[in-house]
Amino acid sequence: MLQAYHGKKVLLVGGLGFIGSTLAHPLVELGAQVRILDNFQPDHGANWHNIGDIRDKVEVHVTDLRDQYALRQLIQDQDVIFNIAAQTSHSDSMVNPFEDLDINCRGNLILLEACRHFNPTARVVFVGTRAYYGSPEQTPVPEASPMHPRDIYSIHRYAAERYHFIYHLHYGLPVTALRISNIYGPYAQMAHPRYNVLNFFVRLALEDRPIQIYGEGNQLRDYVYAADAAEALLLAGVHPDALGQVFNVGSGAGLPFRTLAETIVELAGQSRCEFVPWPEGAQSYDVGDFIMDTTALHQTLGWQAQTSIREGLAQTIAFYRQHHPHYW
Amino acid sequence: MLQAYHGKKVLLVGGLGFIGSTLAHPLVELGAQVRILDNFQPDHGANWHNIGDIRDKVEVHVTDLRDQYALRQLIQDQDVIFNIAAQTSHSDSMVNPFEDLDINCRGNLILLEACRHFNPTARVVFVGTRAYYGSPEQTPVPEASPMHPRDIYSIHRYAAERYHFIYHLHYGLPVTALRISNIYGPYAQMAHPRYNVLNFFVRLALEDRPIQIYGEGNQLRDYVYAADAAEALLLAGVHPDALGQVFNVGSGAGLPFRTLAETIVELAGQSRCEFVPWPEGAQSYDVGDFIMDTTALHQTLGWQAQTSIREGLAQTIAFYRQHHPHYW
Repeated sequence: MLQAYHGKKVLLVGGLGFIGSTLAHPLVELGAQVRILDNFQPDHGANWHNIGDIRDKVEVHVTDLRDQYALRQLIQDQDVIFNIAAQTSHSDSMVNPFEDLDINCRGNLILLEACRHFNPTARVVFVGTRAYYGSPEQTPVPEASPMHPRDIYSIHRYAAERYHFIYHLHYGLPVTALRISNIYGPYAQMAHPRYNVLNFFVRLALEDRPIQIYGEGNQLRDYVYAADAAEALLLAGVHPDALGQVFNVGSGAGLPFRTLAETIVELAGQSRCEFVPWPEGAQSYDVGDFIMDTTALHQTLGWQAQTSIREGLAQTIAFYRQHHPHYW
Repeated sequence: MLQAYHGKKVLLVGGLGFIGSTLAHPLVELGAQVRILDNFQPDHGANWHNIGDIRDKVEVHVTDLRDQYALRQLIQDQDVIFNIAAQTSHSDSMVNPFEDLDINCRGNLILLEACRHFNPTARVVFVGTRAYYGSPEQTPVPEASPMHPRDIYSIHRYAAERYHFIYHLHYGLPVTALRISNIYGPYAQMAHPRYNVLNFFVRLALEDRPIQIYGEGNQLRDYVYAADAAEALLLAGVHPDALGQVFNVGSGAGLPFRTLAETIVELAGQSRCEFVPWPEGAQSYDVGDFIMDTTALHQTLGWQAQTSIREGLAQTIAFYRQHHPHYW
């Protein structure tokens, strides 16, 4: 199925960050013509080192999704558009809800309006998040669950997902949306923990600094290795049965948060876990146990996560051990 | 319970339109100090005639919700804030999604940020809509149902509702949200049908023009008389059990769309119904049958709709028959 990418023009909107770079590598290998758009917003994940090994095989435009004229130009003739650009910090969205609105809502409207008017047949894959579900009433959580967003970020990202289906319903844009669980792996920024605390733990371990866990750390999480998730995203961009659908992308299994941290410590062979009380106000962001129901993705696209947490973490630790000067 | 409004400072944000004016009258009667903010956006519902009979008993500021400095000033010392301002046209939101975003999302963030910093103890009542539910999987529709928004307007209004609960969760703002079904009654603008087709039908009947119904008009709708809905909103602003809650506001019963139109024709004693095919693209906006489950509102606040559809329509027709030069 993924051989369909050979010769295809593929645009990665927000393509130099964690997930975009994880997609770019297999796309180059599959023979796609890869175009990357990224705005290099400070603190976000864009990093030239992420594509250092494929730099001459991809086309990069440093511009913002919200630059509507640039975007119009760059989306034309593309076959598949991966819509990955986002403000992804829950806490930043609370500090500056207006910027979160501008990136995560207005940016997506600009993209969809551009697709509608200048390339209405391109497949659009919206790369979203488990965050909309918030604190689920039951686990594992299927796609049809009610949403319980717990921060501004989650509200805006859900709105952006829904935009795609409005443009599908009214204008026929061929869209697919994914909701990714807790993702980890190479190519993530590690300057600060605001986007992805899991990857940041790897940095702490490699620096031999203690990993702080709030409370007992017993809450279950569904961890998915980025290269596995990338395969689901790639399937979503070409599989005919993915059209108009939304899919959870996760391992489908729950691991206690503390076990994750302890496994990082064990595999890194250094650092230690420290259990501390919840800081004031922080617990209102916690969603309790979270496990995804990934049945739909498995049945429709034949995908399931392949990489065990130990294997994924070992690869992640090895990557950052070698490349850390580029990431922090 | 509503006697609690005596002497209370009450701000109606977007208070000169249909719902705001319907609230202003009982508030004045209950002895509240009523302050109204409205931006008089063209085509929206603001109308000086709506408060003609209570003009000397309310304080009006012509300004926009998005004018953050004006808003900061006007919300201070208020006890209850009814957040009614909105872009309410489904079709306008598709033609100009960016303006809908600015009013329906950014405007609400400005209001909530102002409350958080300058009046965090005021009760805030968000006046929302059934539109988020879209095409429900089952009727009657309870509050916990998944959302199926079918236009940009519905996405943004749902986001705005969720903002209120984020500010409740993280900053303790005392909020309540209402989702109102198909509302009709005096004080609505009737220059065009884009905000409220039901009220526009009354105009057509009074002008002895035919009322066009797309398809067979058999879809069920839950019609609520504005004065009834206003009572639910008022309860939501002072009832302790309403804090942090969301309530459906509707009749709880379904009436075929065609019956509504035929009843208007009958009560007006003129005009006629015309059945025509769905115009191209219009049917993708239709949500099928819709009836609200209003159990929560009844059990928690003791409210239920009192006015029959015939009685409500008769009062509505009588109002516009007398006042129509102010409305079209």
